[in-house]
Amino acid sequence: MSKVFDRLQAKINELKNPTVIGLDPKLEYIPSFITDELKHEGYSAAALEEEAIFRFNKTLIDATADIIPAIKPQLAYYELYGEAGMKALYRTIAYAREQGQIVIADGKRNDIGSTSEAYAKAWLGRADILTVNAYLGSDGIIPFVEESLALDAGIFALVRTSNPSAAEFQDLELADGRKLYEAVADQVEAWNLDHIGEAGFGPVGSVVGATWPEQARALRERMPHSFFLVPGYGAQGGTAEDAVANFNDRGEGAIVNSSRGLMLAYKKSGIYGEGEYARACREEAIAMREALNRALNK
Amino acid sequence: MSKVFDRLQAKINELKNPTVIGLDPKLEYIPSFITDELKHEGYSAAALEEEAIFRFNKTLIDATADIIPAIKPQLAYYELYGEAGMKALYRTIAYAREQGQIVIADGKRNDIGSTSEAYAKAWLGRADILTVNAYLGSDGIIPFVEESLALDAGIFALVRTSNPSAAEFQDLELADGRKLYEAVADQVEAWNLDHIGEAGFGPVGSVVGATWPEQARALRERMPHSFFLVPGYGAQGGTAEDAVANFNDRGEGAIVNSSRGLMLAYKKSGIYGEGEYARACREEAIAMREALNRALNK
Repeated sequence: MSKVFDRLQAKINELKNPTVIGLDPKLEYIPSFITDELKHEGYSAAALEEEAIFRFNKTLIDATADIIPAIKPQLAYYELYGEAGMKALYRTIAYAREQGQIVIADGKRNDIGSTSEAYAKAWLGRADILTVNAYLGSDGIIPFVEESLALDAGIFALVRTSNPSAAEFQDLELADGRKLYEAVADQVEAWNLDHIGEAGFGPVGSVVGATWPEQARALRERMPHSFFLVPGYGAQGGTAEDAVANFNDRGEGAIVNSSRGLMLAYKKSGIYGEGEYARACREEAIAMREALNRALNK
Repeated sequence: MSKVFDRLQAKINELKNPTVIGLDPKLEYIPSFITDELKHEGYSAAALEEEAIFRFNKTLIDATADIIPAIKPQLAYYELYGEAGMKALYRTIAYAREQGQIVIADGKRNDIGSTSEAYAKAWLGRADILTVNAYLGSDGIIPFVEESLALDAGIFALVRTSNPSAAEFQDLELADGRKLYEAVADQVEAWNLDHIGEAGFGPVGSVVGATWPEQARALRERMPHSFFLVPGYGAQGGTAEDAVANFNDRGEGAIVNSSRGLMLAYKKSGIYGEGEYARACREEAIAMREALNRALNK
């Protein structure tokens, strides 16, 4: 029986906030006073990169861990900085979990058999949930499911993404009348059925783009036992009203991501300077929580 | 104009060997005398893991770099060992390139826009070619293409894989009569058309499973400008005769991977002890080269 989405739903209910903050710290996003401080403290180049990324993330976590249940580091932005980036990532994940947050490692990993198992052991031991890509079919997903059950962890499989060209393959019409993303959805529901936890979800969550609310509503019905990760809020144009389509009748079963919208709130506010980026992020997180709860009628 | 597959084809022609060695060094694959040596040299736990993985790889590279044109590290097996694994990976990639080998980072990465760009900068700066997954469509692939052109690098996109459940999604029949993997193939050919290099290939190669030779032959015709990475040789059951279907009329345009079949040749030989794993790998690499050349000259 899968428990990770029981934990995630409980944390969302406790904080009354179905939000995950995306932590994608490109170095150019990090306020320059942080790197200035580190130079002053005597950090050399590679150590400075690691420390700057970690401090930026830590400050955002400290500013929001009491109101945001989960973080989603996008692995690409850490791999970009090599060893320094990977160390900052490992520290960020460990720190967020110490604060009681659920960690979604956004790596869209995919392979088969023992290689999927290696990815699962690499990330599900360290984080709570990993995003995956299902193009390789059950040989690719079942090893993640098995490790998820063993490690109290889970995955989010890409079903229907929110980018403009998502339709190129995902919306292709099949001979049986379904679209490709619907065939993926049906398989996700099948992978979940033997492992449903108390909150009603199996270990295979789904990434479902918030900019397509009608598809989201249909997918919510098609995969009642899959927890949804909803990208596209804020910076990518999705609204709280759009996001609601991803939740079930109990107002549960989905978490909405905002990355730059929260991380870089100070840039858009016109109120806060870069020294107040954490406060700006918290204010924006509260506004996002209220907007989602209003839309959900909570 | 894309040049990376010109370089790869030239290297294959020079060594008369269209083989890539997969370096997937799970710690349990590494002969125990290597770790014993390192303990004796005073290495502590994490440093020992890094050094054991690197030495194992280095020894295999030293034994085969004059006959095998490329290595393919599977990133999962390095991520599995955290910081130690990533350091060993970076050192392995740098070392192989110093020996003149082409490096294919097998990460099957995928995302969109600036995140794909971050993956491209992370891996195409470091390695020559990265494997990617195209489920997100052009938004996911074009950033890799652009970075490939800028960095003299390339990608291999998953088209038709060799695992048993590959058919679950990849072989779904579309309303227009194509199968999904054929639709992906058509898009790969389109992504290549404006960037074809002297050897005849654009920056978007394809992963095409060797265990399905008829599909491979049809895909070779469908994507004349895409270089093929062919998994499944040896341990996964593909033969040299099967692999030939992936090459064009000139006997070019494909490279065949063997991972455990070469890396762990000593275990199957019944002749070599673990102390001779490098020699066993070289003998097996020569046998594979001869088998491929025999099959290609028929």
